[in-house]
Amino acid sequence: MKKLLALLVLMPALGWAQTNEDSIFIKKISDDVFQNGCAYELLRDLTKNVGGRLGGSPEFAKAIQWGKKAMGTLGANKVYLQPCMVPRWVRNGKNDKVAVVALNNKPTLKPLDALALGNSIGTPTEKGITAEVFAINDFDQLEKYKDHIKGKIVFYNYHFNPTNINTFTSYADAVRYRGGGASRAAKYGAVGMIVRSMSESTDNNPHTGDMEYNDSFPKIPAVAIGLQDADKLWKICQLSTSVKVNINTHGKKMPDVPAANVIAELKGNEFPDEIITVGGHLDSWDVNEGANDDGAGVVHTMEVLRVLNALGYKPKRTIRFVLFADEEKSGRGAQKYADEAKAKGEKHLFALESDAGGFTPRGFSFAVPPSAWNKLNAWKVLFEPYGGSRFVVGGGGADTEPLQDAFKTPVAELNPDSQRYFDLHHSRADVFENVNRRELLLGAVNITALIYLVDKYGL
Amino acid sequence: MKKLLALLVLMPALGWAQTNEDSIFIKKISDDVFQNGCAYELLRDLTKNVGGRLGGSPEFAKAIQWGKKAMGTLGANKVYLQPCMVPRWVRNGKNDKVAVVALNNKPTLKPLDALALGNSIGTPTEKGITAEVFAINDFDQLEKYKDHIKGKIVFYNYHFNPTNINTFTSYADAVRYRGGGASRAAKYGAVGMIVRSMSESTDNNPHTGDMEYNDSFPKIPAVAIGLQDADKLWKICQLSTSVKVNINTHGKKMPDVPAANVIAELKGNEFPDEIITVGGHLDSWDVNEGANDDGAGVVHTMEVLRVLNALGYKPKRTIRFVLFADEEKSGRGAQKYADEAKAKGEKHLFALESDAGGFTPRGFSFAVPPSAWNKLNAWKVLFEPYGGSRFVVGGGGADTEPLQDAFKTPVAELNPDSQRYFDLHHSRADVFENVNRRELLLGAVNITALIYLVDKYGL
Repeated sequence: MKKLLALLVLMPALGWAQTNEDSIFIKKISDDVFQNGCAYELLRDLTKNVGGRLGGSPEFAKAIQWGKKAMGTLGANKVYLQPCMVPRWVRNGKNDKVAVVALNNKPTLKPLDALALGNSIGTPTEKGITAEVFAINDFDQLEKYKDHIKGKIVFYNYHFNPTNINTFTSYADAVRYRGGGASRAAKYGAVGMIVRSMSESTDNNPHTGDMEYNDSFPKIPAVAIGLQDADKLWKICQLSTSVKVNINTHGKKMPDVPAANVIAELKGNEFPDEIITVGGHLDSWDVNEGANDDGAGVVHTMEVLRVLNALGYKPKRTIRFVLFADEEKSGRGAQKYADEAKAKGEKHLFALESDAGGFTPRGFSFAVPPSAWNKLNAWKVLFEPYGGSRFVVGGGGADTEPLQDAFKTPVAELNPDSQRYFDLHHSRADVFENVNRRELLLGAVNITALIYLVDKYGL
Repeated sequence: MKKLLALLVLMPALGWAQTNEDSIFIKKISDDVFQNGCAYELLRDLTKNVGGRLGGSPEFAKAIQWGKKAMGTLGANKVYLQPCMVPRWVRNGKNDKVAVVALNNKPTLKPLDALALGNSIGTPTEKGITAEVFAINDFDQLEKYKDHIKGKIVFYNYHFNPTNINTFTSYADAVRYRGGGASRAAKYGAVGMIVRSMSESTDNNPHTGDMEYNDSFPKIPAVAIGLQDADKLWKICQLSTSVKVNINTHGKKMPDVPAANVIAELKGNEFPDEIITVGGHLDSWDVNEGANDDGAGVVHTMEVLRVLNALGYKPKRTIRFVLFADEEKSGRGAQKYADEAKAKGEKHLFALESDAGGFTPRGFSFAVPPSAWNKLNAWKVLFEPYGGSRFVVGGGGADTEPLQDAFKTPVAELNPDSQRYFDLHHSRADVFENVNRRELLLGAVNITALIYLVDKYGL
């Protein structure tokens, strides 16, 4: 009895009967996903048979066809491609090579496991570039020692902050060095940049990812090294008066190429013009299988479609299932989706993204008007049995942002537990084997429940 | 402002100032654990240098010495062994072998990956036993077909229920077949028992574990097979009129041997006679490294000790850090601990156990008097930043039960997320590599916070 009273107190916006009906339907969603879910097998297929699929690559073109075909089997009213141009960058076949080649002017050879950052230029000649390393902790030290940088390779050994429980907070802090560190060093005459990977992993895998040049300064090659090698290089730099490193990479920007978002639709029965979007991004980095980033979001999206169909659910609103193109390098797929929605005068009620991995769900972050929180707070109790009841103020991800900008569309993102994400993110370790079946499916259960509630009650 | 009001409403039992002081101290715990935590490295040492440590084995004797030595480095007032006798069972060196050897009376050889269950007798001769398989889903079918069992090997293909979000619920249901299935089949004349592993894993690892004979019926050998082999064997049985299997195992009960609980103490400054216990079990199964079961609980326990010391915390009550002996086969270590406490007339305020893996924490289950819930509900908000705020009615684990029985001591158990646990539990896959560092440490943060609050405010 006490429990019932507590529920009523917590649910000002919905009556008990309604909520009970919803909890029964969400249990049906959950049972069906755990008994008949396709997400794990689709992820196996995507990661093992398509594999790494950098936006603009031939592998990405294959992924688009894979997505269209797979979505076609899940009972949508229509499945189509939304063409867009995406930038292309190639690592250029050859292995990225980085090595300590001289200590105090004595030759040595200590290879470091490295990956060129996405968008980085390659080194200019067959021999790569060889220069003295200038090791610093952060941008403050860069400014302090700016007169010592010229002709050197700057090594940013900036650490991921281990004390943030939400590891995305530490990532947002550390990623500044990957994204802008090269140009900031080039401003003071650096000829190359090495960055400590944005991770707390216990292995030595380097983590690649997007970087951007500031056109005011010369472009210099930029690479990431793993944590064990970063610690090693830092120590060597502390113990030696001169450390020379050779960087040999081959990255190259190519002309834009045609690509596409893959879209499936379940047409609304009452308000077909009101659109709810759920999606993830189809592209990944080239060095892994993109299992958590963002194969999980791709198959979450497909699982929502499958289970709603399997349960015979007839949506009030039109639900769009979108596999976005090229999130990693440009966000062009998401931009195209929002631009076309604007051009057509579409009404976008809500957009939800899954781009934080296939780990056990904790909840969602929302960017919604304050008025929507009454409904959300009333719904939380429905998510408690499925682990996704932590609803926080935040936002969607990169792929819902253009829609938010265009229409002030309320957006959200699934928040899986973040402890393991940056062990794998953008590294060779982001493979199928590092996704757990039940955790992945539980994410899909929570997303489907939220889409169902927004469809039924609006937001 | 709204947030502050919400906190005050949620905290009837504690003033704001107190809670603020506590949240600051818990943040210190968390920061120190993530910056200086030893749990992960201790787990590496235990799993890689001691390894599997079945209660009563020479490896377990080594683990006791390891535990005593390791606890001795963490700043306890005293570290000691509490001797107890434990049963001994040996798999007997040789590999457990199970194979389909005839289909419809035509010889064949299809090996199945199998593990003898703990306490099972071995097969009587060098050749093992060969008999026809009788495949059933559950005990209902056993009763229905009891006249067809004689002279056969019963194969229970009972499935782990995938629809329970808490996988321990499915385990409690399925484990009846492992624990009592052999004797129930022997009652009707079965000569051997094969059980589908209690798991939903996607691999084919068999999962061993404790079984008990009912002395009213003949003892028959009992083995577990992995899920892929269980599906294969089931299918073969459906398609054939006669399937013969050979079981060749060597399990043997030996005389009891001396062992010990490992205990460290931080002496209380105000109420030294009031004892708070925190612990996990030091033994594991023999076929793996016991990383999650229960290496995680062992190093959680040690981390609580380390961090309280590192922060200079002076407990009001006496805190005991206990590594229990032989949870898996007998619970004798826990029984000894409770018996001795009773004999000495000790006062046990609270006991907390970690024996559900090193996964990201979700909360705790409690068996406490109703009056304690006011305090617990007020504390929940302090655990929200660390993921462990789901406080549910339940109980401790097997190692706190004797204390509960003896003193009605309030008990609790850490509830990590359970999605991955039974993929690994009692199988060869329960190794160090399947524990994530941050998830493990986050468990220790939540446990330490709870121990700190109980020590400070009582329960």
